[in-house]
Amino acid sequence: MSKEIPYKIYLEENEMPKSWYNLRADMKKKPAPLLNPGTHQPMTAEELSVVFCDELVKQELDNDTRFYEIPEEIRNFYKMYRPAPLVRAYCLEKKLGTPAHIYYKFEGNNTSGSHKLNSAIAQAYYAKKQGLKGVTTETGAGQWGTALSMACSYFDLDCKVFMVKVSYEQKPFRREVMRTYGASVTPSPSETTEVGKKILAEHPGTTGSLGCAISEAVEVAVGTPGYRYVLGSVLNQVLLHQSVIGLETKAALDKYGIKADVVIGCAGGGSNLGGLIAPFMGEKLRGEADYRIIAVEPASCPSLTRGVYAYDFCDTGMVCPLAKMYTLGSDFIPAPNHAGGLRYHGMSSILSELYDQGLMEARSVKQTDVFEAAEMFARVEGILPAPESSHAIRAAIDEALKCKETGEEKNIVFGLTGTGYFDMVAYEKFHDGKMDDYIPTDEELAKFRARLPKVD
Amino acid sequence: MSKEIPYKIYLEENEMPKSWYNLRADMKKKPAPLLNPGTHQPMTAEELSVVFCDELVKQELDNDTRFYEIPEEIRNFYKMYRPAPLVRAYCLEKKLGTPAHIYYKFEGNNTSGSHKLNSAIAQAYYAKKQGLKGVTTETGAGQWGTALSMACSYFDLDCKVFMVKVSYEQKPFRREVMRTYGASVTPSPSETTEVGKKILAEHPGTTGSLGCAISEAVEVAVGTPGYRYVLGSVLNQVLLHQSVIGLETKAALDKYGIKADVVIGCAGGGSNLGGLIAPFMGEKLRGEADYRIIAVEPASCPSLTRGVYAYDFCDTGMVCPLAKMYTLGSDFIPAPNHAGGLRYHGMSSILSELYDQGLMEARSVKQTDVFEAAEMFARVEGILPAPESSHAIRAAIDEALKCKETGEEKNIVFGLTGTGYFDMVAYEKFHDGKMDDYIPTDEELAKFRARLPKVD
Repeated sequence: MSKEIPYKIYLEENEMPKSWYNLRADMKKKPAPLLNPGTHQPMTAEELSVVFCDELVKQELDNDTRFYEIPEEIRNFYKMYRPAPLVRAYCLEKKLGTPAHIYYKFEGNNTSGSHKLNSAIAQAYYAKKQGLKGVTTETGAGQWGTALSMACSYFDLDCKVFMVKVSYEQKPFRREVMRTYGASVTPSPSETTEVGKKILAEHPGTTGSLGCAISEAVEVAVGTPGYRYVLGSVLNQVLLHQSVIGLETKAALDKYGIKADVVIGCAGGGSNLGGLIAPFMGEKLRGEADYRIIAVEPASCPSLTRGVYAYDFCDTGMVCPLAKMYTLGSDFIPAPNHAGGLRYHGMSSILSELYDQGLMEARSVKQTDVFEAAEMFARVEGILPAPESSHAIRAAIDEALKCKETGEEKNIVFGLTGTGYFDMVAYEKFHDGKMDDYIPTDEELAKFRARLPKVD
Repeated sequence: MSKEIPYKIYLEENEMPKSWYNLRADMKKKPAPLLNPGTHQPMTAEELSVVFCDELVKQELDNDTRFYEIPEEIRNFYKMYRPAPLVRAYCLEKKLGTPAHIYYKFEGNNTSGSHKLNSAIAQAYYAKKQGLKGVTTETGAGQWGTALSMACSYFDLDCKVFMVKVSYEQKPFRREVMRTYGASVTPSPSETTEVGKKILAEHPGTTGSLGCAISEAVEVAVGTPGYRYVLGSVLNQVLLHQSVIGLETKAALDKYGIKADVVIGCAGGGSNLGGLIAPFMGEKLRGEADYRIIAVEPASCPSLTRGVYAYDFCDTGMVCPLAKMYTLGSDFIPAPNHAGGLRYHGMSSILSELYDQGLMEARSVKQTDVFEAAEMFARVEGILPAPESSHAIRAAIDEALKCKETGEEKNIVFGLTGTGYFDMVAYEKFHDGKMDDYIPTDEELAKFRARLPKVD
């Protein structure tokens, strides 16, 4: 007889994960290494340590160690906002009339409003431990910048954020949250860097892009003694830290004897998806259990479903290493009407490799369908979801409706990465019928693809 | 040997309160009744039921029933966002270097961002149960309007919100959250009501006030078949519903054998404070235990510390019943530079009576001191607090610093009513040094006081 499942499963503090899980250790074919953009040779630890903290370089390159103990200082910080609840979506199930059981792992119960804090605190910790003065980063909508500001404030590190100019101007509240945590926030492109000046000279009046902000942040980190650059997604190290999401999810399910059938996550750079699925994919790789795993991306930025698996630049400025990934091309930028986040042109190398091996599915969803799902979810489950997270909601609802047709009582688990409190402009567009569903044509995608770097 | 206290104490679902506690049942001297503004006679159930739902009228007038069972539908809704955690502020204690133990009850983990949802869902439930079509209300900054929108959406009730015009224009995001939950939001004063037209004719260009929005909402409720008016604070019924905060807090403390020494809450209309302190005050009234209880209000709107205890109107339009309360006068409006919420001119009759009997303390705090406390708290505890809640943080920090001087290991418990995500304009002012500490003079207060209604 199984225990009655509560609305929210909270782990006790002593049940929280004490180690991160490195999925790469269980991959027979490992993800492709980062390459030096000049020589096309694998990046060495020495080369990477100019940009990243030493310990993070180690984590980035380590394909073998299965578990990394989470340092106590980080576990203490986690206790401030974790464990995140695993919520049984009883009200959504009822609304849909589905026999499926829907669960979501809610990562929005912290001021950064998303899962990004899980890696931010780890990266800040290692920077502090190395005796650094500060870190630099970029942020688009501001979730990552907020998370990093919080983490740096906790460890008394300086934090320099380059914020895509259009967001800096349109999202002043995110900027103020970062300032509350003591970060300096510079609109990008800026006159404070060489690459910024160059871009401004070439494109006066540009409102910036994520790729451009990355280039500025890297330049400042490399050029300022005592500073390193940190990134909130895509990298192996980030997926390692985010495995805490999946480990908690799995522990909560196991506590009630629930076996997931489908695991669903939204996918931009891959940090949430990679973290959520880690222990499930691990069992799959080891042949211990099987799960359907679904990556959900926006139809306007469809790297997995319509990109190619190739080496590409991680940034527009082409100063970063090359990563092998499903990519749309490093100068691809989603249409300006796209409000749903998940705008990165590529996808984490780990996830790209797993997808290429057929170990997970991917689907793209249209923007208005995403916001319809978001609004339905908000009304019945109470939480106003981030547009990013709502991609996963859309897919979870679609899977639950399939179960309604077939009568299957499947366990559907999805990641609710964050809240949409700073995304009300997008919701307003949706309410006012001003949102549309632009999808890039094959010709457009081919144009960006033609500019991929040539790597033998 | 006591158990180790975790960072966050979550009750299990089966430990959550099944009844609300009606503090009035334990008061020897009851709070003064509402009076008919025309006759100055106590309002009857019949008179009140024109404005409020029948069941809520019963709760409003009932000074005797100690416990009200929480209907199952409401308890199910509570499960979506409750139990709220009781958090041990380990990081704040460390930052302050105090021997005191600081705990806060965090009510911000829901989309409305505050404790207001606890009463909103109850009021919506009783409206639905009575077969009503919808409810009307007013909202200032938008917390209450958001909460009510969520509650009405859940029970499929129409929700008409009159939002103070200046907030409607300056806080478009709050408006959009309400729209997400299907509410109609009208800037007040509006041309849709007689009282609104009258105010607009007398004061063209006015940006509105809470008292004026109340008058409009009441007019529409009374004049529309199938509608009633609901209010988010001040009333006895609201304090009854909010007792869930205090009951959970007490249960969490009891679970770990912790005896509170000081209980602190911010005070506007009194809904949070009244709810938080209910079971503690109950023990005090019954002579079972003693607690210091502290109400914290803004120095710019100091109803308890500088008001008078008298009958006054609840609204500016003077259409509502008279309530006996500590009041500054119903046309008192805090200075426009006041950013910290808690703007109501009066205070719940229950709390006013308890304060008058010397059963609790009150203090007022200055705005910049409040935001300093808010920022310190955000940096060490991670949560970005609402300005309202930060009044309680200020007082808790001050008490903890006193303990540092005396070496006392007191248990300080305060209510963290909500998050400040929609208050970044106020934080921006603070960061930019544009916030000041206007405090009304005695002469100004005397002017408003002179206009109190004469009640024998």
